[in-house]
Amino acid sequence: MRIGFIGLGHMGSAMATNLVKAGHDVTVFNRTPGRSQALLALGAHEATQIADACQGEVVVTMLSDDAAVADVAFANDGLVASLSRRAIHVSMSSISVEFSKRLAQAHAQAGQAYVAAPVLGRPDMAAAAKLFIVAAGDPMAIDTCRPLFDAMGQKTLPIGKEAWTANLVKLSCNFLQGAIIEALGEAIALISKAGIDRHAYVDLLTSTVFTAPAYKIFGGLIADDKFEPALFAAPLGYKDIRLWLAAGEGQRVPMPIASLLHDRFLRLFAQGGDQLDWAAIGGLAAHDAEAVQGAAKMSSSL
Amino acid sequence: MRIGFIGLGHMGSAMATNLVKAGHDVTVFNRTPGRSQALLALGAHEATQIADACQGEVVVTMLSDDAAVADVAFANDGLVASLSRRAIHVSMSSISVEFSKRLAQAHAQAGQAYVAAPVLGRPDMAAAAKLFIVAAGDPMAIDTCRPLFDAMGQKTLPIGKEAWTANLVKLSCNFLQGAIIEALGEAIALISKAGIDRHAYVDLLTSTVFTAPAYKIFGGLIADDKFEPALFAAPLGYKDIRLWLAAGEGQRVPMPIASLLHDRFLRLFAQGGDQLDWAAIGGLAAHDAEAVQGAAKMSSSL
Amino acid sequence: MRIGFIGLGHMGSAMATNLVKAGHDVTVFNRTPGRSQALLALGAHEATQIADACQGEVVVTMLSDDAAVADVAFANDGLVASLSRRAIHVSMSSISVEFSKRLAQAHAQAGQAYVAAPVLGRPDMAAAAKLFIVAAGDPMAIDTCRPLFDAMGQKTLPIGKEAWTANLVKLSCNFLQGAIIEALGEAIALISKAGIDRHAYVDLLTSTVFTAPAYKIFGGLIADDKFEPALFAAPLGYKDIRLWLAAGEGQRVPMPIASLLHDRFLRLFAQGGDQLDWAAIGGLAAHDAEAVQGAAKMSSSL
Amino acid sequence: MRIGFIGLGHMGSAMATNLVKAGHDVTVFNRTPGRSQALLALGAHEATQIADACQGEVVVTMLSDDAAVADVAFANDGLVASLSRRAIHVSMSSISVEFSKRLAQAHAQAGQAYVAAPVLGRPDMAAAAKLFIVAAGDPMAIDTCRPLFDAMGQKTLPIGKEAWTANLVKLSCNFLQGAIIEALGEAIALISKAGIDRHAYVDLLTSTVFTAPAYKIFGGLIADDKFEPALFAAPLGYKDIRLWLAAGEGQRVPMPIASLLHDRFLRLFAQGGDQLDWAAIGGLAAHDAEAVQGAAKMSSSL
Repeated sequence: MRIGFIGLGHMGSAMATNLVKAGHDVTVFNRTPGRSQALLALGAHEATQIADACQGEVVVTMLSDDAAVADVAFANDGLVASLSRRAIHVSMSSISVEFSKRLAQAHAQAGQAYVAAPVLGRPDMAAAAKLFIVAAGDPMAIDTCRPLFDAMGQKTLPIGKEAWTANLVKLSCNFLQGAIIEALGEAIALISKAGIDRHAYVDLLTSTVFTAPAYKIFGGLIADDKFEPALFAAPLGYKDIRLWLAAGEGQRVPMPIASLLHDRFLRLFAQGGDQLDWAAIGGLAAHDAEAVQGAAKMSSSL
Repeated sequence: MRIGFIGLGHMGSAMATNLVKAGHDVTVFNRTPGRSQALLALGAHEATQIADACQGEVVVTMLSDDAAVADVAFANDGLVASLSRRAIHVSMSSISVEFSKRLAQAHAQAGQAYVAAPVLGRPDMAAAAKLFIVAAGDPMAIDTCRPLFDAMGQKTLPIGKEAWTANLVKLSCNFLQGAIIEALGEAIALISKAGIDRHAYVDLLTSTVFTAPAYKIFGGLIADDKFEPALFAAPLGYKDIRLWLAAGEGQRVPMPIASLLHDRFLRLFAQGGDQLDWAAIGGLAAHDAEAVQGAAKMSSSL
Repeated sequence: MRIGFIGLGHMGSAMATNLVKAGHDVTVFNRTPGRSQALLALGAHEATQIADACQGEVVVTMLSDDAAVADVAFANDGLVASLSRRAIHVSMSSISVEFSKRLAQAHAQAGQAYVAAPVLGRPDMAAAAKLFIVAAGDPMAIDTCRPLFDAMGQKTLPIGKEAWTANLVKLSCNFLQGAIIEALGEAIALISKAGIDRHAYVDLLTSTVFTAPAYKIFGGLIADDKFEPALFAAPLGYKDIRLWLAAGEGQRVPMPIASLLHDRFLRLFAQGGDQLDWAAIGGLAAHDAEAVQGAAKMSSSL
Repeated sequence: MRIGFIGLGHMGSAMATNLVKAGHDVTVFNRTPGRSQALLALGAHEATQIADACQGEVVVTMLSDDAAVADVAFANDGLVASLSRRAIHVSMSSISVEFSKRLAQAHAQAGQAYVAAPVLGRPDMAAAAKLFIVAAGDPMAIDTCRPLFDAMGQKTLPIGKEAWTANLVKLSCNFLQGAIIEALGEAIALISKAGIDRHAYVDLLTSTVFTAPAYKIFGGLIADDKFEPALFAAPLGYKDIRLWLAAGEGQRVPMPIASLLHDRFLRLFAQGGDQLDWAAIGGLAAHDAEAVQGAAKMSSSL
């Protein structure tokens, strides 16, 4: 299939590579140049402007946030202006529900199709074509994209006809993972303050009833108290929790754990943790439980 | 091995059955009579008083809480009074850290051994001898009990020499499960209010990155909004969260999700949910998000 | 002084009336017509478009939110376009920190002065010219406005040269009041469930150490469980808590009580409380503690 | 009136002094000797054992907690054993609801009267006989004690016939004050991080709508970030919040702000704040918002 691919970060590069390997005719575009060499070597083409990536049946976007997608979708030579009628914009970024609705409307008005297909999985899963893809939008458009999804992921899960529902489901998964981080952080804080070895504890958990990868990955990071280099940077986690809370506001659904996670991120950033993996919010419970400078400052305030 | 087994609830009956089937000489005791018939048919003996169950090398207790264990341990003919020197009390109930320390001290003073060996798993896992057993205490005593643990569980995980550490680890597992319930409850509340099918959503979660049984079990219950009959009754879950918070108090470790779970249980009980499965606290987020009698009452207060 | 006054709601009408009574030459404008008759009878003039209210030295705006102020400030014939150089926009509405910064910049670029002067007080205090006015901005502009502030309030409190600081302080006052509402709600929930008379309890509190009007007003409403008609409608309280949280986000300051209040408002709105006084969030703690339809629904889900 | 007075801490000494000055025949007892000299100089008598303080119509206890009151009430020569029939125990300490019920029962069985009369106010108010006294119990016994209450306080507020209701009301007042501390802490954290002067802010609050002494006292301490010497030590505040939460558990009333305060105290103690005034929990919000050692430690964990 002739497709465009916009956004060559850690995830996007791996996904585009798998599309090229599967034999598709892929034209890539990235705002920051210099990311496409390996892809070109595999046979991809490079677009020098967005419109050049919009000449086929499908354009995939895999970008960091609403603003980045808005830039490529609504630019003068952007997707809405450049895609032909009936062409499909497959938005695989983790974006807000509101913005997904806005994209759906803009593409509909332009006679184009819009599919939201955010992914579950880390860069290593993207490289191995093992992503889970949550897809929503027009069923026929999703069908058209099936070969692409099959090239990038291990499973595609259609969730509905309204594209934004896929974005909401994706945000919910990051919320559920954030809850695991915080709960593990609290448990490890108490267990270790009581004198039990953190790593033995995480091993015990993950070899019995908490066998999910999330417990292994986050439990290991928190037990090590080592959050660099970031696999998934804290500002990205924060962004998703904010979008999840914004969806909760829109639907009038109070979510106390989500509010707690939000406050944890603010504290992490206030204390300089912008570069850390988002699992670092799981280190804050232990900080609350330990003697820190704050207390020293307090007692020196005599 | 000649052993006593005290406590024939859902879990205890299944565990004692597996001990008998493995060829051990088991004398059972239960405060409420009439629970032992199936066991007797398999070859177990029945004790009419606690002391009769204390004639072997080991006595296992599997009871509901601190008070029930205290009753059998400290009664006039109880374990401390009746066990011979060097005999072992294997406490498999989910009890408090403080009470476990008290038991350790009492048995030590009486020249007896004490092993804390709480279990991870539900009644179906107990029946299938698939429990995980977290064991702590004197390593030689744990070794002596190995054949028993092997008959009841799939894996035994030693965590330390201080018996109470096993109890703390067990409580932490129920806390982590409680956090899953609450987080799922919040996610399902928003997802379903936004119009996405609850069951399709839980299927999606549990067939991708949240494959742990906890997500399947609790997600299913919350999606059904059906919490009876209880697999694990809410008052038992509440008991464990309280014991976990008490351990946090003792160690001075603040745990906001644990505090939230505590408040959720109080609300569930205030609203008549004592008979429900503890997953019912995961139904409260959806109640917060829906029009209920409370609001009607408010507006009729004109 | 020749002034314009835009916004004739409960608060604005009372404030404008006091300006007219103090002898100022006041031209009023309100988007919804028919609110100005009493003022015209006292000698005020009526503007048929915004620009007509911009012919004097000062224009006061007293509107419901950012959007309403933006409408009058940035319209084609709005304040920025119509005020003469050196004229002063006195913004007395409760608006966001971000929007206040934007107004400051726009007026500065147009050579105009901008003073933020939000008020503390309810409509009865506005009518009695007993408001407290928190003022920030150019000190000379504040001096020029002194006679106006003196006509509307009992005390003017300058807080800094950056106009937005006054808006932040105003938001903090509503946050502190929200915290009183929630805390009173929790206390009354427990006290009354324990069998103590709610009104006797509130009387006791407010005749001893909690003598501030907030405790009397909110305590009375919560004790009565009667939140209509609204003195300060819940959506307005919610707006201010959101703006306060947004300021906390901007500064990276986690505020758990503010997050709790936010969640309480979402629940109130989900349950149909949009028309109620914001003190109604103080009624939710009692709902949590009482048997409600929710529980019934749960048990009938068998 | 001939009375005994047990407990000569900061509060008790001041209260006993006012009873002596009012002409009552007061016999004092304190477990730690050396606190009574000033009282003896004024004409009080000293008891060398508890029973000696139990020879009159009334014994007042003003002690630190349940355990201290239990010691004097249930000792072999304690109040229950030594008071004559119809004599009155006036318990003015801040104790738990459960323990107050236990005292009521014990005195009733001994044919003695029991009045709970906890006080609202700080040591300076005790010295000035300006306390507020919340009284509950047998109305005739309260009447008998009126002259004593009048000598110690500015106002006596009967709240019911069940003595424990006075204890619950007293705990609620400390909870409401704790909520003020936390809310002020959050507000000052944001205000000051935004660049506004903390003291100017507190002055503004307390000269307008937050005129209650609590805002002045706690606002001043938090603005100074100086919590020593303690007027009301953090462990005493924690004790009262725990008793309040315990009452909430008993009645099944979830109280999220109370849970938050509980967690704040644990953190304060973990960080070495046991010697500080309880207002120090109001300093934690600012710590969350500032770069601290914790973050440094995190980034050095590379």
